[in-house]
Amino acid sequence: MPRFFALGTNLLGGRAIIRGRDAEHIKVLRLRPGEEMTICDGKGTDYRCRLVRSDKDEAEAEIIEVVQCAAEPTVSVRVLCGLPKGDKTDYIIQKCVEAGAHEICFFRSERVVQRTEGVTKKLERWNRISEEAAKQSGRGIIPEVRWLDTYVGALDAAKQQEKTFFMYETGQREGLRAALKGAEKLGSAAIITGPEGGFEPYEADMARKVGMHVCAMGARILRCETAPVVALTALMYESGNLEAN
Amino acid sequence: MPRFFALGTNLLGGRAIIRGRDAEHIKVLRLRPGEEMTICDGKGTDYRCRLVRSDKDEAEAEIIEVVQCAAEPTVSVRVLCGLPKGDKTDYIIQKCVEAGAHEICFFRSERVVQRTEGVTKKLERWNRISEEAAKQSGRGIIPEVRWLDTYVGALDAAKQQEKTFFMYETGQREGLRAALKGAEKLGSAAIITGPEGGFEPYEADMARKVGMHVCAMGARILRCETAPVVALTALMYESGNLEAN
Repeated sequence: MPRFFALGTNLLGGRAIIRGRDAEHIKVLRLRPGEEMTICDGKGTDYRCRLVRSDKDEAEAEIIEVVQCAAEPTVSVRVLCGLPKGDKTDYIIQKCVEAGAHEICFFRSERVVQRTEGVTKKLERWNRISEEAAKQSGRGIIPEVRWLDTYVGALDAAKQQEKTFFMYETGQREGLRAALKGAEKLGSAAIITGPEGGFEPYEADMARKVGMHVCAMGARILRCETAPVVALTALMYESGNLEAN
Repeated sequence: MPRFFALGTNLLGGRAIIRGRDAEHIKVLRLRPGEEMTICDGKGTDYRCRLVRSDKDEAEAEIIEVVQCAAEPTVSVRVLCGLPKGDKTDYIIQKCVEAGAHEICFFRSERVVQRTEGVTKKLERWNRISEEAAKQSGRGIIPEVRWLDTYVGALDAAKQQEKTFFMYETGQREGLRAALKGAEKLGSAAIITGPEGGFEPYEADMARKVGMHVCAMGARILRCETAPVVALTALMYESGNLEAN
């Protein structure tokens, strides 16, 4: 069933009025009156609708059923990644949205080599990638993509969650399974991974000092764009969010 | 430390003679006599070596220490994927090698839309991608990439492993955690995922009939190139292969 986020939609009184890009999309899909679609409010609620009329600028649909979107995980995960080079950001966004992230933040850290001037100009494109991935994977929200200009800002954003898992490639670390134990009961969590060169030892020390779980992910060296997806998948698995629906 | 697979290497009598591409690579890296590197035999054994001499065609190194490569998982996983369109194969190979696959097979199934004439010509490139990813992630083997021309052939290849996990997006399925329980004790396993359009119901029935575990991976729809990586990560996690080394 076609799926839209109700960004330009008015969902009052049993009717949905769809305008803008989504109205055009309905036209392009050649949906006909009587056919069904799902409109999601972007806050986890799905509206099953039947199309009443549609033209290029506006479509109208009748709301048949209002349900909780089943695709949202029980744990809200903020994924924080040291800004990687080139278009690895796009890959991280797409895969983490599919895997169930609630929010994706890129941050500056000591070993970030990608230039960060003008990085905020990329936010619009990044958020569009998130929207596309959210639609395609049937998410109930569009995970926000943000930029954090300092490493301390990234630690702060992580610490706002119940538990933080800091992925580090050397030194004393917890095994991922030990760290994730009890994840079923978590309402929120953060995952932090580094840029191409990883973290400086002092950065890992800071994470340790503020009480984060410094974790290992096995003996294989993961690329900076693979690590967040693997860590997020492990968390989703342990928290019971990779089960039958 | 630089890492090479001993494909063109003679490892006898405490000496390693390196020829071909790797000899050139040593030259390019400007390794000097006395510097150390790791030569892996591609069967899970690492040879820590000290360079003695090097020119464009041949390098010689002294073997200092012979150790088991720590990066190889306890479970040997054959990942089988319905052939996807375009370069999604490359992504699947790279990420599955990083995540610890032992072998990657692409197969033809009912809903494969990518043309399969001449697909065997791609095997050389696919295996080169595997070799690069194996080097980069510190693997002890180069996972082989293969092509299986029939769906029955894919089921056969899967059934040669101790347990098979068949990822399916609809109908009656086991939760992934229930299916993976006891994975720590597995010596081998297979993971099967479909092409873009997923599997035909009769294909899932066949898998069920030959005793495979038909599994769900949560309520989010995963792209065909994401599903094998997520399933493999869950298996590595459950089997204790994402722990500190």
